[in-house]
Amino acid sequence: MVADVDAATPHTATGGGAPAETLGRSERKHRAILEAAQGMFLAGGYLGTNMDELAAASRVSKQTVYKHFGSKEALFVELVTSMTDAAGDRVHVDLADPTEADEVPSFLEAYADRQLDIVMTPTLLQLRRLVIGEVTRFPELAEALYEHGPKRAITTLAAMFERFDELGLLRVDDPTAAATEFNWLVMGEPVNRAMLLGDAAIPTAAERAAQVRGAVRVFLAAYGAR
Amino acid sequence: MVADVDAATPHTATGGGAPAETLGRSERKHRAILEAAQGMFLAGGYLGTNMDELAAASRVSKQTVYKHFGSKEALFVELVTSMTDAAGDRVHVDLADPTEADEVPSFLEAYADRQLDIVMTPTLLQLRRLVIGEVTRFPELAEALYEHGPKRAITTLAAMFERFDELGLLRVDDPTAAATEFNWLVMGEPVNRAMLLGDAAIPTAAERAAQVRGAVRVFLAAYGAR
Repeated sequence: MVADVDAATPHTATGGGAPAETLGRSERKHRAILEAAQGMFLAGGYLGTNMDELAAASRVSKQTVYKHFGSKEALFVELVTSMTDAAGDRVHVDLADPTEADEVPSFLEAYADRQLDIVMTPTLLQLRRLVIGEVTRFPELAEALYEHGPKRAITTLAAMFERFDELGLLRVDDPTAAATEFNWLVMGEPVNRAMLLGDAAIPTAAERAAQVRGAVRVFLAAYGAR
Repeated sequence: MVADVDAATPHTATGGGAPAETLGRSERKHRAILEAAQGMFLAGGYLGTNMDELAAASRVSKQTVYKHFGSKEALFVELVTSMTDAAGDRVHVDLADPTEADEVPSFLEAYADRQLDIVMTPTLLQLRRLVIGEVTRFPELAEALYEHGPKRAITTLAAMFERFDELGLLRVDDPTAAATEFNWLVMGEPVNRAMLLGDAAIPTAAERAAQVRGAVRVFLAAYGAR
């Protein structure tokens, strides 16, 4: 894995990385390869992506692709990692913790709504379908998505719920269990529908709001401080 | 879709269908084709399955395969339907409704444990991975899985929760919302782990029991009659 912030956000034209002109030559190439890889893997699948075509689309030599990423699989693992990490980063910035118990419901609704909004995009859903379809052949791809996607989301939620418990805003004995339950109350139905029914099943803002209200209500019935 | 109970359970050697010797010749062929199709599709994927090889493995002519199923896609849709329906049937038999509120927690735990036990099998998980991987190319496959799998499970749960509400065993205003929440509290984490981490993540009986206890506790905090 390359510790390169810019390379880590190839898909967010507006988010994260420095503009291309401030990058070094090597970083520009790294980013160009990841950008081309995202388009080709998502459209053609893992096996359907050809490293010669990828080099051509990135305007670099095939040796440069291998110098930067080592192998097709390592390149795809880095792509999965950077796409899921970038999505996770966007969920977790800029939401101030509540300080009073009566702020908790609207805080959790805002958090969950943002999580749904960011995860339920055609690009991330297609990445998820793709790695699930290849899990028996290429378990590392799906494991990278698991670690940087749902596992990271649940770890972050667990730390948050533990904080809220200490602040008296929630009553949570087992933060990881509570985080897992919250995550799937929010994400389970929308993700499953989008996996099986395609992008037409991505919820609208109104559908997200309804989904999130129900999930938070159930969660707080079990874990609310009062 | 063929209304053939025996053909609809090709994969359950012990469940459902009549023994092969009591079936007519056409039904035996139908079942043999579905049995061979299950093995070949799950091992080789949808595109990797060849209809000539499938006919040979079923010991019938290719014309017979097409006479019974019409097309490769229709055959796979029937396979998805029969496998998911058979799993659903096994969840829903032989569980008597509770009659007292204090029987509800153990009833729901038994129900959810059975649901997990039946759905979390290598065969059904691989079917799910396969259709998710092909959803953009063959949306009918995934739609069949959605309709006969999670949608049917949630519809059945919703009818059950509505009954329990009328009996005063639960307080459920929106049975479909409650059913959806229950389904994903129970299934979300185990299914996601198995999708991305493979069959090694299938929960043990003890892990299922812990999963189910937590899910039922959260659900009853929101929907319990007391």
